[in-house]
Amino acid sequence: MTKTMKRWTLDTIGVDAALNLTETAVPTPARGEVLVRVKAVSLNYRDKLVRETGMGLPIQFPFVPASDMAGVVEAVGDDVTRFSAGDRVISTFHPDWIDGKPLGDARNPPYRTLGGFHTGVLSEYVALSEDWLVTAPNSLDHGEASTLPCAGLTAWFALVERGKIKPGDSVLVQGTGGVSLFGLQIAAAQGAEVFVTSSGPEKLARAKALGAHHGIDRNAGDWVEEVYRLTNDRGVDHIFEIAGGPNLGQSLKAVAPHGRISVIGVLEGFDISGPAGPLLLKSPVIQGISVGHRRALEDFVRAIDKIGLKPVIDHRYAFGEVPAAFDHLDHGAFGKIVIEL
Amino acid sequence: MTKTMKRWTLDTIGVDAALNLTETAVPTPARGEVLVRVKAVSLNYRDKLVRETGMGLPIQFPFVPASDMAGVVEAVGDDVTRFSAGDRVISTFHPDWIDGKPLGDARNPPYRTLGGFHTGVLSEYVALSEDWLVTAPNSLDHGEASTLPCAGLTAWFALVERGKIKPGDSVLVQGTGGVSLFGLQIAAAQGAEVFVTSSGPEKLARAKALGAHHGIDRNAGDWVEEVYRLTNDRGVDHIFEIAGGPNLGQSLKAVAPHGRISVIGVLEGFDISGPAGPLLLKSPVIQGISVGHRRALEDFVRAIDKIGLKPVIDHRYAFGEVPAAFDHLDHGAFGKIVIEL
Amino acid sequence: MTKTMKRWTLDTIGVDAALNLTETAVPTPARGEVLVRVKAVSLNYRDKLVRETGMGLPIQFPFVPASDMAGVVEAVGDDVTRFSAGDRVISTFHPDWIDGKPLGDARNPPYRTLGGFHTGVLSEYVALSEDWLVTAPNSLDHGEASTLPCAGLTAWFALVERGKIKPGDSVLVQGTGGVSLFGLQIAAAQGAEVFVTSSGPEKLARAKALGAHHGIDRNAGDWVEEVYRLTNDRGVDHIFEIAGGPNLGQSLKAVAPHGRISVIGVLEGFDISGPAGPLLLKSPVIQGISVGHRRALEDFVRAIDKIGLKPVIDHRYAFGEVPAAFDHLDHGAFGKIVIEL
Amino acid sequence: MTKTMKRWTLDTIGVDAALNLTETAVPTPARGEVLVRVKAVSLNYRDKLVRETGMGLPIQFPFVPASDMAGVVEAVGDDVTRFSAGDRVISTFHPDWIDGKPLGDARNPPYRTLGGFHTGVLSEYVALSEDWLVTAPNSLDHGEASTLPCAGLTAWFALVERGKIKPGDSVLVQGTGGVSLFGLQIAAAQGAEVFVTSSGPEKLARAKALGAHHGIDRNAGDWVEEVYRLTNDRGVDHIFEIAGGPNLGQSLKAVAPHGRISVIGVLEGFDISGPAGPLLLKSPVIQGISVGHRRALEDFVRAIDKIGLKPVIDHRYAFGEVPAAFDHLDHGAFGKIVIEL
Repeated sequence: MTKTMKRWTLDTIGVDAALNLTETAVPTPARGEVLVRVKAVSLNYRDKLVRETGMGLPIQFPFVPASDMAGVVEAVGDDVTRFSAGDRVISTFHPDWIDGKPLGDARNPPYRTLGGFHTGVLSEYVALSEDWLVTAPNSLDHGEASTLPCAGLTAWFALVERGKIKPGDSVLVQGTGGVSLFGLQIAAAQGAEVFVTSSGPEKLARAKALGAHHGIDRNAGDWVEEVYRLTNDRGVDHIFEIAGGPNLGQSLKAVAPHGRISVIGVLEGFDISGPAGPLLLKSPVIQGISVGHRRALEDFVRAIDKIGLKPVIDHRYAFGEVPAAFDHLDHGAFGKIVIEL
Repeated sequence: MTKTMKRWTLDTIGVDAALNLTETAVPTPARGEVLVRVKAVSLNYRDKLVRETGMGLPIQFPFVPASDMAGVVEAVGDDVTRFSAGDRVISTFHPDWIDGKPLGDARNPPYRTLGGFHTGVLSEYVALSEDWLVTAPNSLDHGEASTLPCAGLTAWFALVERGKIKPGDSVLVQGTGGVSLFGLQIAAAQGAEVFVTSSGPEKLARAKALGAHHGIDRNAGDWVEEVYRLTNDRGVDHIFEIAGGPNLGQSLKAVAPHGRISVIGVLEGFDISGPAGPLLLKSPVIQGISVGHRRALEDFVRAIDKIGLKPVIDHRYAFGEVPAAFDHLDHGAFGKIVIEL
Repeated sequence: MTKTMKRWTLDTIGVDAALNLTETAVPTPARGEVLVRVKAVSLNYRDKLVRETGMGLPIQFPFVPASDMAGVVEAVGDDVTRFSAGDRVISTFHPDWIDGKPLGDARNPPYRTLGGFHTGVLSEYVALSEDWLVTAPNSLDHGEASTLPCAGLTAWFALVERGKIKPGDSVLVQGTGGVSLFGLQIAAAQGAEVFVTSSGPEKLARAKALGAHHGIDRNAGDWVEEVYRLTNDRGVDHIFEIAGGPNLGQSLKAVAPHGRISVIGVLEGFDISGPAGPLLLKSPVIQGISVGHRRALEDFVRAIDKIGLKPVIDHRYAFGEVPAAFDHLDHGAFGKIVIEL
Repeated sequence: MTKTMKRWTLDTIGVDAALNLTETAVPTPARGEVLVRVKAVSLNYRDKLVRETGMGLPIQFPFVPASDMAGVVEAVGDDVTRFSAGDRVISTFHPDWIDGKPLGDARNPPYRTLGGFHTGVLSEYVALSEDWLVTAPNSLDHGEASTLPCAGLTAWFALVERGKIKPGDSVLVQGTGGVSLFGLQIAAAQGAEVFVTSSGPEKLARAKALGAHHGIDRNAGDWVEEVYRLTNDRGVDHIFEIAGGPNLGQSLKAVAPHGRISVIGVLEGFDISGPAGPLLLKSPVIQGISVGHRRALEDFVRAIDKIGLKPVIDHRYAFGEVPAAFDHLDHGAFGKIVIEL
């Protein structure tokens, strides 16, 4: 007698594509696979784009959305050596990127993720290759742990794996979405001086409560001038560029000589632009960040247990409330949106 | 009785600012300074911009243009230890940048160069701090050696000091100006596969004679598609972005995942722009290059003697022909324009 | 009707352990595996140690020795995507090390290689995971290609992947074994200044014919003083330390400030030792090299086709002459020992 | 009328060389120099070696010992731009090493320090080039600030500038001397997991109070086995090797694959030695650390103000008690020994 499970599926792509709670058989883990009882799923703005546009991906229907989950190993297939039943695990965003360089080429960039090229995790159970999973941190609950594979790792990869920030560096994050708040918390935990730009005093106050040293209200004037004032013209060493578009020009003005601008933004429909002068004279690195590899996620998990970082969750929805959780994506969030099972 | 010398000076800034051959006393080297008999000066497009616009620099009149020279030590001041009379030397573009990070801050980028913030070298003699000079390569004549401090070092700094290219990497240089041809030659000498984009078969043929493996005619269609075709979609690891403006978008399409785009271009009046998608998904580094430091110039000099690189000189002018040499800058050059004394 | 093949096997470990030519069934490639018709095998000194001591590895009998082969894909199992029949391939030494960091921990270092933890390749056919193979260079024959996975990659990993040598650097290789000669050729191809130490003028002459600039006879006096003399006291930037033992002390004297010593030596029974003074004051990096990862081997293959490097083979044996080839290991070789099938 | 000042001088080198409190004229700052009123001096074990052996340096008598001081700018010479009267400053250990690579060659390693090649700072006033000074941190008193130029920067340079440690890394420091305690505090502030080896429970308890997570009593058994036990065989990522000698062999066993061993030890009379096996198979970096450059000291000062690090001072002596302070060096200290003026 086959056991069944519930999962959320799409049968089409579009702005109004219906999210359906459907039933199917619980999968059996094949050789090298692990069956995971999903306990929490975290949404990203990208999940909205996939639902509404498909993002040019070869989507297979019925399609299960979402890339990030935390759960407990229920059973393991033959030859599995990294996990056993009862282990707490999280998923990886790019499952075939273990370390070093990703696969893909210039024409076909690497983008074989869960909840896109591969089917997603908004499901009571998932069966995944053991290579696609990482041990969850001990210090986080399932909801918190589910926020790490995409938003958390993006911030860690930009600041630590690529940016190699150190105590005393200055770091500026733009806005108070999930990646920005992770960036704020990681930078503060490493002894960096943290600047946050946002709109309105309430969000800035919350950002400061999380460890930011300076809040800059984007509505209150030119944020670059405020950076100059606060740093005595030194500028900031590392900027998290979220907004994209002509905002990059502002970041180029605000960055310190030989600093770094990590571009972490929405993929569709945007150009970046800015003046060549400061790019040449200050010679910063501008680097797009596409989440990160499994080895860095393992490093990040170890760090979380050590520094006590707690991901910021705006709201926790029940498994039955998935459509409401997607609606929340439309309105923006202070931190992450999580669905618990 | 004071010895006199000739030098070229400007008394004003402007498109038609007159270049005058004037006479002044040969300077006496102060403590820590070296008096150099200038034997060759190399021009850069930037020298034209300084003459015509001042580039916002605190120009002192009479102003001697040009940043790059090769010469012979005529005499040394007290406490000079690095050089003695008869040594062949070249100048450094950023004299106060010895190694590591440059001076300057976010509002005031580092740009204290010769022939700009400091007076220039288009003079029979110059007296400079011994720290501002580097031993010339043994294997180059004065004219060739004079091309290294700005154009040569820019290419070396981008490809070797920052880019750390290795045999088997692919490198694409845009155009056949001085920096691009240095990039071509350095990349070829390191066993990289070199692509050159230019307009017309004649320049491409000359580039191939210098070691390029592939010439792409920009007039013959979309150069990105040609890169895809030639690399079997792999893309190129390192792109020398000279043109600026929306061309960056093309470079973002042509670059391999985790590749590098060095932006080396004209400073004034240009924005860079391009699509966010490939920047995020392929995660290349985009880095402005502002020449380089003295330690890297010393490394480059050592390399030149070892690999036998000969800078490409489009034309050698006599000291009396400086106005004609500046006119040549307006028309573009295949390699460098040099003035010999 | 099962097809059979020949292979060389050991039934025991020991100085006199017999190498037997035995017959077995040609394997069928499982899901994800590739069947390779072996065309050449290259021996390493380590193969002798495994045969004589087992090196503490969990050897399974009958044991097939040797880690390095070149061959042609005969057939592929289900789900294989990286190769098809007729492709020329080479093996990887550490098959589970794709990029970045290897597996293993402090007590149990990473050492799961072919011809050791895994069975070896001295066999007419081998069936291996497609992930364990790399495309062979176009410019090498099978015998030459078989020398890359261990000796060639060790030199490339030390000098290029880790050492990031550049034109004008100085590189010193000790001796004329397989790894040293690869180091010599790679360094020369990148425009480095190459020093070789060896015993006797004949080997030095052959090393110079391969591209070394300076040969230092170890029997003719203190090689460190000779390095000082040849470099005008500057020292060498990168030393290939093969001998181990107190020789490291000499390398510490010869290395330039902030240089690099790659330790690439025999694993068993040796200590390294040297004076703390130059290690502190000159602050070089000393790094053990344990071959390298697959991504670097792929980079190296691409480089070989570009720079035209031809591995140095001391002698090519026929498949029936394997015992003679092992005897050759005892006497040392100028370059590599290869067995052709 | 010339103002006079007191300073401590040696007229000879030797185990019993007398430290004399002598009088001389307060120096006048030359062009480019700064006159500093010394407020605190910190001693290093090296000061004892210089006094007793001269360390092979070209000592000029009367010789003023000590390299590390904190003070207040009293006056500035012509052309000084980096400091003005009243600024709080600290000295730099290698005054001519600003950034990047140091001067020196293979035969003559870089070692032109204060209190050695240059005269020292155990004096009421010193006149030094403005390039030899760094702004003191706001958050430290003079005594604390005086401990940064040698001991503090050594730990920072090893862990941060070279080691690039990150949250979640494991760091092991050996002993409870000045450099080790700085290493402990820097590593803990960055979210690393810190192990300390020392002898006896009292020192270990004090180390834990400073932020160490694990104390290992060297008298209680094999510290490597204890590291294996505490890390579940993973080993430690970064080891501060202070003891030198055969202890390096233990560090090679304890280090994680691809980890780092920073050798920071006594310069005279010691060899390092260890087994080649783990050096090869785990491929760690072993790197001698010779303090660091001015740019890194400026980074460290900025970090100190941000992370609130307070250097550990074992005892503060008065200026008249210098001989007692030197005696204290003989007995070892928990942290630093400081002399206040």
